[in-house]
Amino acid sequence: MDFSSFLTSLGTSFVIFLVLMCLFTWLSRRPGNDVIYYPNRMLKGLDPHEGTRVTRNPLDWIREAFSSTESDVIRMSGVDSAVYFVFLTTGIVRLHDSTITLFHAALGIFVLGGIVLLPILLPVAATSQGALKANDTISEGSFNDLDKLAMGNIPERSPRLWAFMAATYWVSFVAYCLLWKAYRHVSDIRATALMSAEVKNEQFAILVRDIPPVPNGLTRKEQVDSYFKTIYPETFYRSMVVTDNKKVNKIYKKLEGYKKKLARAEVIYAESKTTGSPEGTRPTAKTGFLGLFGKKVDALEYYDGKIQEFIPKLETEQKVTLKDKQLRSALVFFNDRRAAAAASQSLHPTMVDTWTVLDAPEPRQLIWSNLPKNFYSRQLRQHLIYFLVFLTILFYLIPIGFVSALTTLANLRRTLPFLKVIVDKPALKTVLGAFLPQLALIIFLALLPKFLLFLSKAEGIPSVSHVQRAASGKYFYFAVLNVFIGVTISSSLFTELKAIGKKPRSIIDVLANNLPKSATFFLTFVALRSFVGYGLELSRIVPLIIFHLKRKYLCKTEAEVREAWAPGDLGYATRVPGDLLIATIVLCYSVIAPIIIPFGVVYFGLAWLVFRNQVLKVYLPSYETYGRMWPHIHNRIVAALFLFQVTMFGYFGTKRFYYAPLIIPLMILSLIFAYVCAKKYYRFFRFPALEVASHELKEPLNLELVFRSFIPPSLSSDKADEDQFEDALSQVSRSGSTL
Amino acid sequence: MDFSSFLTSLGTSFVIFLVLMCLFTWLSRRPGNDVIYYPNRMLKGLDPHEGTRVTRNPLDWIREAFSSTESDVIRMSGVDSAVYFVFLTTGIVRLHDSTITLFHAALGIFVLGGIVLLPILLPVAATSQGALKANDTISEGSFNDLDKLAMGNIPERSPRLWAFMAATYWVSFVAYCLLWKAYRHVSDIRATALMSAEVKNEQFAILVRDIPPVPNGLTRKEQVDSYFKTIYPETFYRSMVVTDNKKVNKIYKKLEGYKKKLARAEVIYAESKTTGSPEGTRPTAKTGFLGLFGKKVDALEYYDGKIQEFIPKLETEQKVTLKDKQLRSALVFFNDRRAAAAASQSLHPTMVDTWTVLDAPEPRQLIWSNLPKNFYSRQLRQHLIYFLVFLTILFYLIPIGFVSALTTLANLRRTLPFLKVIVDKPALKTVLGAFLPQLALIIFLALLPKFLLFLSKAEGIPSVSHVQRAASGKYFYFAVLNVFIGVTISSSLFTELKAIGKKPRSIIDVLANNLPKSATFFLTFVALRSFVGYGLELSRIVPLIIFHLKRKYLCKTEAEVREAWAPGDLGYATRVPGDLLIATIVLCYSVIAPIIIPFGVVYFGLAWLVFRNQVLKVYLPSYETYGRMWPHIHNRIVAALFLFQVTMFGYFGTKRFYYAPLIIPLMILSLIFAYVCAKKYYRFFRFPALEVASHELKEPLNLELVFRSFIPPSLSSDKADEDQFEDALSQVSRSGSTL
Repeated sequence: MDFSSFLTSLGTSFVIFLVLMCLFTWLSRRPGNDVIYYPNRMLKGLDPHEGTRVTRNPLDWIREAFSSTESDVIRMSGVDSAVYFVFLTTGIVRLHDSTITLFHAALGIFVLGGIVLLPILLPVAATSQGALKANDTISEGSFNDLDKLAMGNIPERSPRLWAFMAATYWVSFVAYCLLWKAYRHVSDIRATALMSAEVKNEQFAILVRDIPPVPNGLTRKEQVDSYFKTIYPETFYRSMVVTDNKKVNKIYKKLEGYKKKLARAEVIYAESKTTGSPEGTRPTAKTGFLGLFGKKVDALEYYDGKIQEFIPKLETEQKVTLKDKQLRSALVFFNDRRAAAAASQSLHPTMVDTWTVLDAPEPRQLIWSNLPKNFYSRQLRQHLIYFLVFLTILFYLIPIGFVSALTTLANLRRTLPFLKVIVDKPALKTVLGAFLPQLALIIFLALLPKFLLFLSKAEGIPSVSHVQRAASGKYFYFAVLNVFIGVTISSSLFTELKAIGKKPRSIIDVLANNLPKSATFFLTFVALRSFVGYGLELSRIVPLIIFHLKRKYLCKTEAEVREAWAPGDLGYATRVPGDLLIATIVLCYSVIAPIIIPFGVVYFGLAWLVFRNQVLKVYLPSYETYGRMWPHIHNRIVAALFLFQVTMFGYFGTKRFYYAPLIIPLMILSLIFAYVCAKKYYRFFRFPALEVASHELKEPLNLELVFRSFIPPSLSSDKADEDQFEDALSQVSRSGSTL
Repeated sequence: MDFSSFLTSLGTSFVIFLVLMCLFTWLSRRPGNDVIYYPNRMLKGLDPHEGTRVTRNPLDWIREAFSSTESDVIRMSGVDSAVYFVFLTTGIVRLHDSTITLFHAALGIFVLGGIVLLPILLPVAATSQGALKANDTISEGSFNDLDKLAMGNIPERSPRLWAFMAATYWVSFVAYCLLWKAYRHVSDIRATALMSAEVKNEQFAILVRDIPPVPNGLTRKEQVDSYFKTIYPETFYRSMVVTDNKKVNKIYKKLEGYKKKLARAEVIYAESKTTGSPEGTRPTAKTGFLGLFGKKVDALEYYDGKIQEFIPKLETEQKVTLKDKQLRSALVFFNDRRAAAAASQSLHPTMVDTWTVLDAPEPRQLIWSNLPKNFYSRQLRQHLIYFLVFLTILFYLIPIGFVSALTTLANLRRTLPFLKVIVDKPALKTVLGAFLPQLALIIFLALLPKFLLFLSKAEGIPSVSHVQRAASGKYFYFAVLNVFIGVTISSSLFTELKAIGKKPRSIIDVLANNLPKSATFFLTFVALRSFVGYGLELSRIVPLIIFHLKRKYLCKTEAEVREAWAPGDLGYATRVPGDLLIATIVLCYSVIAPIIIPFGVVYFGLAWLVFRNQVLKVYLPSYETYGRMWPHIHNRIVAALFLFQVTMFGYFGTKRFYYAPLIIPLMILSLIFAYVCAKKYYRFFRFPALEVASHELKEPLNLELVFRSFIPPSLSSDKADEDQFEDALSQVSRSGSTL
């Protein structure tokens, strides 16, 4: 890619961003769009435009974002969002009345890094002469003004390399320092949230899996109750045995579907009444496949009949499920947070593959179908899936390599001759040349998350948040290995292969030669993601169009409209690894091509700004893990730092710099840093700390409500469960302490 | 070593064993020796000769050993001894009234292995021809009849190698099966012991370390009490803050020393009275260094004065220690086993480097001085010491290599010419030639354990048993790496070095050529340790002589005599790794030179027999860990099995056997086996299982006694502690729940 196409791409991206921002300002003021731009506020019953429309300033949302505090974020969107902001950028921590701004994580590293690196390294590189001219392997105009500002412009063995060595140390230490503070800060947020005096249902429950076979003469529920009553005679409240809900869920879904259809038919009927004919026309429905085939019947009667048919069916199935489909897993409730917290991390049996315990996730994020999975099956699945992911990563490298090699315009023109007409127009050619490789890459990456989520769920993980973390981890490795390393090496794979044929060169030479060349690619990549990505995010064009289309042509009832504008959550599973990939790229290039740092700052700055708006006004979290995502993010940033150091070590080596081994202590330091952080902070993110759980509650506790919150909707019809759970409970009381 | 010297060594060892056994029979019947041969029984107040002397059969002790059961062992010597027997050999497990003999661990593996391997592999090897004759690297008469019975006699690519492949699989599967059963059995023994209805003091306490700095206005004790009272309002009993006892210990030791000396002086005075002069002569003492220099004074008065002087000194120092020398560690007591068990494995603070908890070890095995060591200092020490041990292992390899190369007689004769007179006598030459290398090795190994114990204690480990386990682990790695691999490779290092100079050969060729050659060395090694080692162990010649000397010349008071015959414990720290080394050697050679199997069987059989006697009659355990040693032993046997498989893989490779890779699945299986065992069983050996701790106690609990048992002797003078601990407790009650 030459320099002009780089500038074009940059300019285009920025123009797109400005256009999207204006669109956002205009669209968000139209009252019909409130549900798209302020759903979080609306669902919380707040006025969506609180003080916004008065000033009529298009940059109002930015002012609002800046004036919001961390506790606003926690109040509106939960601890997880606040932790995401700690990752992205800055947190304002009040210490002893004086406001001290602490830069955290990504943005802080790049801002502090950039402040020192840019004014020093750019002149050092720019005033250096001779390296690139002497180097004859760079050809075909890819050598441009940008490369002059990079480390590639420094000749071998030059004493100027000392500046780059110092820069490596500076970036590393800034990273250690900020990461350490960020971990402590997140830990504090988590502790504060968990020790709050409000009742959090999941703090009173533990999840028990791998229950051994039922002894003769006992039911599963009696077995569980007597086991835990013996161990916790005073704090045990009651238990809920996990059941096989496949069939009852199916019936429940059908029933709900018919209810929705009935409501819809009623609305249609009511609408037909008002216009002219006061009797209206009764809507019809077809009984066959998908409502498209079969006999035509009166919809209202038909659906009503179906509902009447399914209600008793559901009740029967509920009874059968609760009684006969009890599986080898249970939720156990305690009358005390402390007791539950201690129980969730203690060893109960002598054989570890039975009575496995875990602190219960929130009811809404329980994956009911994964709970009864066997201990060894979980282990086996996990290893199998790691292996599968490993294979996926390995074999995705090949298509991605081809994509970035093929999508250079020259190649495209040769392979697909019918594109010649388009490609040969000069203006279009520049734009396409700039965007095509990046677009191909982004689309490629978009195909993956669903697959990884599916794989992670198949591991047998009991909660949605954990599945998303697991998928996010896989996605990160995938992104770093394939995008970063894959693109770097394969971008000149074809030219290199020829060179290797002639004269054998080591992999480290290949990498060192290609790293600076790929810098421009990644600059464009980061810019594209910053401006276009966050422009789209802010303007919410796609959800807006979909909502208006749905409302016009599909939605009839109030519930359907509400469903159409439901904002969803941030989608950590893809959002976080995406950001981490950018952080990795910027970190790794920060010293080699320091010009990338401002792009990193823009990316994370924009992310902070846009998401501050989205989190306060748009998204609603679909679960709350109290920052369990953080150790995961932390470890990956440290891994990126380590990769950065390894890259620098290799690159110093190819520059024939004798002091390259000075990077090694830094690498060891990174490992120690990771180890100490894990030792000091991690366990609290895995287990509930008793110190935190032992804070007093504000309100008197209604354990019945806590218990009820865990009953899945398909089992909680208004009367059935009451009797049955009570029934099961009373059965136990007579066989109290048989164990 | 040639064949005749091998037979001589074998014969000599066996004769020594017989002689020692006769000595034992004769000596153990002399009543004055009861304290040496039956101290365990005597200390338990049993009749030492219960039914023994009636029959007057010299093999009575063998009959007794066989008729004893596992519960006898547990009753007389604790769970740890029983676990040691499980390791050594067989356990008789009663299942549903029928007695089923289960072979466990070492002996079982070799017996079951030998039954199949010997009748198959020996004929296969012996009838094979041509391999060794064609092989010209073996020279100087080391090729002998033994080698003909080994795998070395099979030519390359021979189909006979299939028999050895099958044997490898057989040994591995026998090992998996027996190890699995043994782990389950040990786990059961441990659970049974821990759930017993007797009060075990340590089950009511937890050990708290890394207590954060004391907040203003509180004492350390108040801080600890209020912290745990908040978290455990109902089950917390009281706490004992760890103090800096260095000075008080010193005073206490001096006081005890003077008390002993006074008692001794009184006995001397009393003895002098009876003979002739009714007034007697008052003994004298010197006041200077070691009682050898300085002024001569009346001993009785002098010691009495000293005691009178030190008692108030001790009391003052006790008060100062308890009040002002509180350190950042404490023991916390609960009124319930369950609560203590849960507390010992739960996370209390949000920062893991503070308030670290651990289940309390027995009072007698607490290393008081290690308790206040800081979290990071412990981590750092651990890693430093691992590194030190690594260096030690590395550099011991060099002297050991020299030892085994130098101590061949020919070399010895050349380097130490004055030995020529002895060495040239033919009979002596044979004996020396057989024993010298092994003796040198054994002495070398005897120097190490103290050093490793010292290192392990420096890691900051809080209990004696854990220190011994840690030292034992280090010793095992040391033994295997240096003795087994070191001797194997270096035994022909000098010859090999020359060969390498001429014609480069891979390390695997070297190993393959040397493994069969070293077989004879290890046969002798195992035989020597079996016969001479266990002969000495059984006859207790050394303790007997020391005891009689002491009693005659040194001991005056009853307490001194008692001290002189105190039997001590088994000494797991060196015993277990020694046995594991033998198991590793025999396992690794079991297929290459199956003739080693009977030697292994003899070793472990004798060990079982002799120790059954020693455990029931002699040794007294100095601590009880309820089998925590087992996971440690188990892992090392599995590691030995893995080493065996790797060796076989390499050896099949050098035999140019195309199917050698068939060993790889076996290696993977070993790793899976280790993983599954660790997952299933290990955690119960690390943490107390609540299921076990929740069993009811028989007697009403006296918590005061539990608390008192943890007070170190130097702090527990009869009146002081009562007041002071009470005092400290009452101080807390007013600041009850400030946290």
